[in-house]
Amino acid sequence: AHVPLSSYKRYSEEVMLERSLEFYQDMNNRRTLRYYSSEPVPREVIENIIRTAGTAPSGAHTEPWTFVVLSDPDLKQRVRELIEEEEEINYTKRMGNQWTKDLQPLKTDWVKEYLTEAPYIILVFKQAYGYNDDGTKKNHYYNELSVAISAGLLMAAIQRAGLVTLTSTPLNCGPGIRTLLNRPNNEKLTLLLPVGYPAKDATVPNLTRKPLKEIMVWL
Amino acid sequence: AHVPLSSYKRYSEEVMLERSLEFYQDMNNRRTLRYYSSEPVPREVIENIIRTAGTAPSGAHTEPWTFVVLSDPDLKQRVRELIEEEEEINYTKRMGNQWTKDLQPLKTDWVKEYLTEAPYIILVFKQAYGYNDDGTKKNHYYNELSVAISAGLLMAAIQRAGLVTLTSTPLNCGPGIRTLLNRPNNEKLTLLLPVGYPAKDATVPNLTRKPLKEIMVWL
Ligand SMILES: Cc1cc2nc3c(=O)[nH]c(=O)nc-3n(C[C@H](O)[C@H](O)[C@H](O)COP(=O)(O)O)c2cc1C
Ligand SMILES: Cc1cc2nc3c(=O)[nH]c(=O)nc-3n(C[C@H](O)[C@H](O)[C@H](O)COP(=O)(O)O)c2cc1C
Repeated sequence: AHVPLSSYKRYSEEVMLERSLEFYQDMNNRRTLRYYSSEPVPREVIENIIRTAGTAPSGAHTEPWTFVVLSDPDLKQRVRELIEEEEEINYTKRMGNQWTKDLQPLKTDWVKEYLTEAPYIILVFKQAYGYNDDGTKKNHYYNELSVAISAGLLMAAIQRAGLVTLTSTPLNCGPGIRTLLNRPNNEKLTLLLPVGYPAKDATVPNLTRKPLKEIMVWL
Repeated sequence: AHVPLSSYKRYSEEVMLERSLEFYQDMNNRRTLRYYSSEPVPREVIENIIRTAGTAPSGAHTEPWTFVVLSDPDLKQRVRELIEEEEEINYTKRMGNQWTKDLQPLKTDWVKEYLTEAPYIILVFKQAYGYNDDGTKKNHYYNELSVAISAGLLMAAIQRAGLVTLTSTPLNCGPGIRTLLNRPNNEKLTLLLPVGYPAKDATVPNLTRKPLKEIMVWL
């Protein structure tokens, strides 16, 4: 059944301009962080951030996502070992010269201290399919796109709260992590994000973003 | 070169909680809209929204996105014709019984009035690859993921401004639209989003979202 749109809130043009500028400035302050403080962060903030990700649109409203939050130090350590082992092979063998060269400005490598330093690791799993009430498989249309859009909301929420993260796609670590965390067969690891406060004296690569005229075409 | 993280702003725990809750509530009010008003929206608001999308993280900082904004009524009409022609075939032939059945609660079909009613259509193109200064091809690592994350920020910015949108993936229309709009070969249409105010008396499907405990696992 269709119902009236009751949740909509309209602003004056002046307020729209203000709000759109304020949100842009906040998001523009976001940077990918690779150095974390181990200071604790209230669980409720993380829950609000994940609730926000869960408001994303999804193909045929299938909501094909599971957010696994690691706070246990032991589990974080085991995930770190698993990832570093694979990442060493990625960097030295699988990625090839061009890729590692393209990453040089970021100074990334296979040692991932943040995986044990940050108070939380959020693992974003996409559900490649789901189940109907009668146990048959349920098609999750556009599940990869839907989950990535949801991750965009997750990152916006992290930034909004004054926390930092790193978007990562641990190449070849998905199956090992899925097994370690006992996740079902229909779930595939899409992204892994440490969340916390930046370390004191944290630095970031000196990057600039493309200006509007390079990313927008007005017709 | 690495530089100090100067854009970071830390909040007290109380403010973090407040901000994370406020942002969740705002995003939770978002609904996919299929009925639009033709009232104009200031161009500057749309520009701020696209600027926001351009702050997204991307694989190796490749920023592999182009946002094409259609405001010209004639172009919107031609895009509508192109899409409705393909969508009729999608619904009656390509999608199959299960898919159209799964879409029944949404009451969607191949007639897309919103494509000419909404003041703007934003077309999100992913750049499957780019070019180096010497004209050689540049690898755009994880371009699909990066663009979808960026689209998540775009939707958050639309909601923040008090506008509405519809996330759509026009099946099989990409090449035709790319040709019509003269976009280069390396760009592929990923999403198409009308943007504007909702029509008076607009309705939405009566959907609920999964509660936190169904989307989050705490370990
Ligand atoms: C990748 C993707 C593709 C979508 N494609 C369409 C579409 O082609 N037509 C449409 O009417 N809705 C489309 N939707 C919107 C979903 O149906 C909608 O998000 C879902 O029903 C949940 O409703 P909500 O966004 O109001 O929460 C799409 C959503 C996503 C994320
Ligand atoms: C899909 C995706 C995968 C990424 N993978 C990694 C990664 O494995 N390791 C890493 O250090 N950064 C990774 N990044 C972060 C990018 O390098 C970063 O977003 C980019 O350099 C721009 O910096 P900024 O986020 O501070 O604007 C990834 C980003 C995206 C969107």
